[in-house]
Amino acid sequence: MTSKPIQRDIIVSEVGPRDGLQSIKRTMATDAKIAWIAALAAAGLPEIEVGSFVSPRLLPQMADIADVVAVAMKLPDVQILALVPNLKGATTAFAAGARRLTMPVSASRLHSQSNINMSPEQAVTQVADVCRLRDGLKGDGRARHVEVGISTAFGCTMEGTVSEDYVIELARLVARAGADVVNLSDTTGMGNPAQVKRLFARLQRELGERAGGAHFHNTRGQGLANVVAALDVGVTTFDSSQAGLGGCPYAPGATGNIVTEDLVFLLEAMGLRTGVDIETLIAARSIIAAALPGEALYGHVSDAGLPKGFVSAASQRLS
Amino acid sequence: MTSKPIQRDIIVSEVGPRDGLQSIKRTMATDAKIAWIAALAAAGLPEIEVGSFVSPRLLPQMADIADVVAVAMKLPDVQILALVPNLKGATTAFAAGARRLTMPVSASRLHSQSNINMSPEQAVTQVADVCRLRDGLKGDGRARHVEVGISTAFGCTMEGTVSEDYVIELARLVARAGADVVNLSDTTGMGNPAQVKRLFARLQRELGERAGGAHFHNTRGQGLANVVAALDVGVTTFDSSQAGLGGCPYAPGATGNIVTEDLVFLLEAMGLRTGVDIETLIAARSIIAAALPGEALYGHVSDAGLPKGFVSAASQRLS
Repeated sequence: MTSKPIQRDIIVSEVGPRDGLQSIKRTMATDAKIAWIAALAAAGLPEIEVGSFVSPRLLPQMADIADVVAVAMKLPDVQILALVPNLKGATTAFAAGARRLTMPVSASRLHSQSNINMSPEQAVTQVADVCRLRDGLKGDGRARHVEVGISTAFGCTMEGTVSEDYVIELARLVARAGADVVNLSDTTGMGNPAQVKRLFARLQRELGERAGGAHFHNTRGQGLANVVAALDVGVTTFDSSQAGLGGCPYAPGATGNIVTEDLVFLLEAMGLRTGVDIETLIAARSIIAAALPGEALYGHVSDAGLPKGFVSAASQRLS
Repeated sequence: MTSKPIQRDIIVSEVGPRDGLQSIKRTMATDAKIAWIAALAAAGLPEIEVGSFVSPRLLPQMADIADVVAVAMKLPDVQILALVPNLKGATTAFAAGARRLTMPVSASRLHSQSNINMSPEQAVTQVADVCRLRDGLKGDGRARHVEVGISTAFGCTMEGTVSEDYVIELARLVARAGADVVNLSDTTGMGNPAQVKRLFARLQRELGERAGGAHFHNTRGQGLANVVAALDVGVTTFDSSQAGLGGCPYAPGATGNIVTEDLVFLLEAMGLRTGVDIETLIAARSIIAAALPGEALYGHVSDAGLPKGFVSAASQRLS
């Protein structure tokens, strides 16, 4: 007897264990990370970005990434992603058993330098190197996948406005370098719905099937508004973080990624199937609360509860 | 020399002094209310709903409404609205000098009863009475205006799902009764973008020029997402509350109306002119903070600040 495949209209890609945990000062214990990731997978999230392969000197929060990946890769029905900034990280990640990597390439020169200590052009070269590494490993018959996220695609805290032409140019370059998918990231929460429609439409025209999803931060409260705009132009993958974990170290009170619970509610209420069970998802917040007592947890649906009479998208289709 | 008229693509209608203040326990002092309303007008808000003409026994927060209206009506370049639930309230409101009234008619029988102690049909009768009163006063040559907001149009905390057919039927009835404009209110923060597009499109087909704006609550964090959907179908008036004042007494942590600051940022970033100066608007939060110390103030843009390189819609047009 095989279980029925879950029907999904939209892929919600949880990035809390990576983007959330790297943005706070404290380090979540490895056991708690693993319990949290397992709970997220059990709630039906189809993708989880579990951490970064970076120097533990720079990001001690991610020092246990190889152990986390090893356990996470055994979870059923979920794609596990890890972030790598360069070839060195990718080599370690593949050796640890990771099969889906995501690489940041920033469209802002100042952000690129301060985030990964490379120019955008150097970051593109790293993508090419990592894609060659991926291709060289093909012999073992296991599919491996390299995504790129164009950071600061909608604006940069340091540079201000970022050229849309340059964002698209970078997307073209990394696709040519072999990236399987290219996502656009509003790293700084500066994007607006008009810009989101314009830039994703261009990305799709340029990259076709390699045009990827949206990574929005909620710094200025615009995250779900930008999701609606992205849905309008056919984007089907969205990053988000449980409880909006992370915040922004430079803006007190400003939240981090868009909140997974609120995003899943938005999509399911619209009749778009995510495969996620919201109540199981909300229950997983308690793992963060226990592991990181006092850490700010964001989100509205967890406070207000599901509306009376709420019907999930999958049930809407059945009825 | 006359001052240039302000160009606006979208009307942001501030409801904090009414919807916000009636939802919190404490009463803001009359002087503070007047200072706050003046500051909101000075920030360029074109419409302000300044309070309700209701029994001070039921809503002591609104006991000074006649005084507030008298002062507010002297402010230049701003439309002043007051809420009235019935003919008695309207009579007092017109006598106090109010010229634009807004009346709630709920599409949920249980909500209607608990909110204004009338059935929806009785509320429609009150609208007809108030419109007759308005018409009877025409002799003095002053324009008077009656709006209706269909409450719980997107769902009810008590009844759950609300019939869309009934919402549209009520809208038709109050328009026939003489309402100048009919708005739709997501009183309970249960709406989603797909529903918003569907319901406003129907309202516009049925009512033509009398189809009005959107009143969204942010209870489940979906407020600005719903704004984007409403913009897509041509809605041009949005209610909001400075600092999202009010919250929801039944849902701890759940915010109230959508936040004016975040709404204005959304619209201006999209290139839609509101006529509002965001920085002046954000500065007005200090009046609430001083008058109601400790009250929860919501909003993201006030925490994160405007992005580097931010250009307002009016300036986008000029450049």
